[in-house]
Amino acid sequence: MEVVNIKEKFNLFNEHWSPKIIGQLNGQDVKISKLQGEFVWHDHKDEDELFYIIKGTLQIEFRDKISTLNEGDMLVIPKGVEHKPIAKEEVWVLLFEPSNIKHTGEVKHELTKETFDKI
Amino acid sequence: MEVVNIKEKFNLFNEHWSPKIIGQLNGQDVKISKLQGEFVWHDHKDEDELFYIIKGTLQIEFRDKISTLNEGDMLVIPKGVEHKPIAKEEVWVLLFEPSNIKHTGEVKHELTKETFDKI
Repeated sequence: MEVVNIKEKFNLFNEHWSPKIIGQLNGQDVKISKLQGEFVWHDHKDEDELFYIIKGTLQIEFRDKISTLNEGDMLVIPKGVEHKPIAKEEVWVLLFEPSNIKHTGEVKHELTKETFDKI
Repeated sequence: MEVVNIKEKFNLFNEHWSPKIIGQLNGQDVKISKLQGEFVWHDHKDEDELFYIIKGTLQIEFRDKISTLNEGDMLVIPKGVEHKPIAKEEVWVLLFEPSNIKHTGEVKHELTKETFDKI
């Protein structure tokens, strides 16, 4: 059991769109990621996904609307809902999602990560 | 799908030791709670539990040590590990845990909540 300071963990890496695992519980991962630019359209067939904004402003484009998340905001994206995150400036996000989730669902893209480092 | 601002949710209630559900995903709850004073010793037989500190300083007493969590710190308490949260001053905490978790495990106490409101 180790107390984890989230901002210290963010200071351990600089890559964008490369989630890092900082905790695991009940078959779920707590991940953090730095985001900048546009991600790829995707959904997760069987997994709901939680975004919680630590720093910055994240837009998430859906097929029928765009949601804007500022620091301290969270959003649960239900399984099967296509989404595309867009970060005009760097965003720090905490993710909570099942450990077996695929980064970009069934979509393969140059941004797709097959594995996630634990930090 | 609704963007939830965590601090706005904290401003909706004042009770201590009464977790409120602010999100649900994959059979898990996202809860927030205000803590002040000493809670009761308990464990959760089958559920790991995540504490993430939004405001204040929380001590969590274990049988063999005390952990101190400040704002931005998180701690995963594995199932079966007895713990007793202590908040000398008011603490705002976010919890991730399975939806079927019992507030104080098998312990019954005047602080035990049988149900959790969604806010």
